[in-house]
Amino acid sequence: MNFADRISLCIQKFGPLVLGLDPHIEYLPRFILEQELKEKGKTWEALAQAVTLTNNKLLDELQDTVGMIKIQMAFYEMLGIPGMSALKSTIEHARNLGYIIILDGKRNDISSTALAYARGYLSSVSFPGGQIESFWKVDALTINPYLGEDGLRPFIDEAGKTDKGIFVLCRTSNRSAPTVQDVSGPEKVYVKVAQMVEALGEKMIGESGFSSIGIVVGATYPDDLKLLRTNFPSLLFLIPGVGAQKGYIKSLANAFRDDGLGAIVNVSRDVIFAYREDLNNESGVGFEKKARERAIYYQERFWELFR
Amino acid sequence: MNFADRISLCIQKFGPLVLGLDPHIEYLPRFILEQELKEKGKTWEALAQAVTLTNNKLLDELQDTVGMIKIQMAFYEMLGIPGMSALKSTIEHARNLGYIIILDGKRNDISSTALAYARGYLSSVSFPGGQIESFWKVDALTINPYLGEDGLRPFIDEAGKTDKGIFVLCRTSNRSAPTVQDVSGPEKVYVKVAQMVEALGEKMIGESGFSSIGIVVGATYPDDLKLLRTNFPSLLFLIPGVGAQKGYIKSLANAFRDDGLGAIVNVSRDVIFAYREDLNNESGVGFEKKARERAIYYQERFWELFR
Repeated sequence: MNFADRISLCIQKFGPLVLGLDPHIEYLPRFILEQELKEKGKTWEALAQAVTLTNNKLLDELQDTVGMIKIQMAFYEMLGIPGMSALKSTIEHARNLGYIIILDGKRNDISSTALAYARGYLSSVSFPGGQIESFWKVDALTINPYLGEDGLRPFIDEAGKTDKGIFVLCRTSNRSAPTVQDVSGPEKVYVKVAQMVEALGEKMIGESGFSSIGIVVGATYPDDLKLLRTNFPSLLFLIPGVGAQKGYIKSLANAFRDDGLGAIVNVSRDVIFAYREDLNNESGVGFEKKARERAIYYQERFWELFR
Repeated sequence: MNFADRISLCIQKFGPLVLGLDPHIEYLPRFILEQELKEKGKTWEALAQAVTLTNNKLLDELQDTVGMIKIQMAFYEMLGIPGMSALKSTIEHARNLGYIIILDGKRNDISSTALAYARGYLSSVSFPGGQIESFWKVDALTINPYLGEDGLRPFIDEAGKTDKGIFVLCRTSNRSAPTVQDVSGPEKVYVKVAQMVEALGEKMIGESGFSSIGIVVGATYPDDLKLLRTNFPSLLFLIPGVGAQKGYIKSLANAFRDDGLGAIVNVSRDVIFAYREDLNNESGVGFEKKARERAIYYQERFWELFR
């Protein structure tokens, strides 16, 4: 099934929340981290295993509440090869539970190098005499548009062949985003990026009316959200900046089509580490229940936008 | 020692060539790849081990000819965890032989996520109760500026603390580069990026007069190379686009300061897979000698620019 249609069904079933698996080491539940450090010493294996166990509990507990996850690669790469094993375990566990998996690596390159990323994460790898299914195989990637159209095309082609999705950074949620993205001549850079993505993805529009090639738009720029929604009706938005980055939920109404489709909203720390608000819970026991409560809270707030 | 000063010494000793380790699977010497596939079957381990063996032979053979390598991460990530092991082996082998190692991952993100990348690749990782030296530890990273200043700062801060280097994508070598990078209001995006990098790196200028925070500038845009060299005397250039991308060597003269410092030039395929031009050498035996000859050819051409 077309990726954008899968996303649309998922929004209808669970709501638009994307569970952001950004395992900051310092926020991991202590009862898990300390057990691992005790067993394995101060090693990459201990840190990576604590990440895997934390993710698995979250994925198990939230499977009836959230339909999509976004994995922030930096936190796994940082832990070396053991971290990459944690990434692999997390992808497999999530896939077995039926989550749609978005890998947030913001990769970018040109020609054969971009193709290597796209094949490695979305499809399959060929070599003289054979072919192997992608080792990491996920449903969608985030990518960076700074290199222009020929940096996007290999990713989009590969996604097209395999019914996968792409989210191109457009208007990011951070404070300095305008320094590059608002350079204007006459269109601002981020608008130009949206135009480019719209053109490149027009053959990948599903029955929902959305293309499998979407854009990343930060919740922290509500006026831009509105402008982009109005001018680019076929683009699916992946929205960061709610929760830890203190974006405003209300302004998200601008991001959706009238039927509540067209945008998915990532929240990371504010869900997975919600237990930290309870100052009496130093050990972190029950963190996954707190995460589930918070996820339900967000899904309900998002539904209210349309009532 | 300041990273830019290390680069300057390396240019004086060997010349400005950077050996690009982009192990395209289809170009690997057949005698190595076939042996691995025979031993290990059609597996990631076979492909990754063929990469490691190819890289090791190149690194051994070229150590008196080239002082710097650039590792293109896509080709390693594509091969899954075995590929990441090949990356690790390559980094360690190169470090033992004294090469300056630039990791070309074009990473980018904001705040704590950017910091996770920077720590993971340049410095050390902290956790409650301890700290471990970076698993991947290299000398420099390439990063993407689309997120603006606050996406660059964590990388630059971490490089500053550890005498490492950063190369920020500025004017890339690909054909569509202008679609984003030439948006102009009134400065073009890539010029604005250069200005931003210059400001952020001004405290990291070494005795050579160059900053450890440099930029990537494609050989394929000679006029831009000249403009950037003239206007940004403290920026070190990492230049792709020579060789496989058919950039012109002559125009590189514009990239250097009069004393021959200030730029390093990456060549990948055209050196490491030079053996493929000999149509009678299907097995690839002796590929490392061909690579060495070609590397010497490039270093000589680069020296001639100043005669």
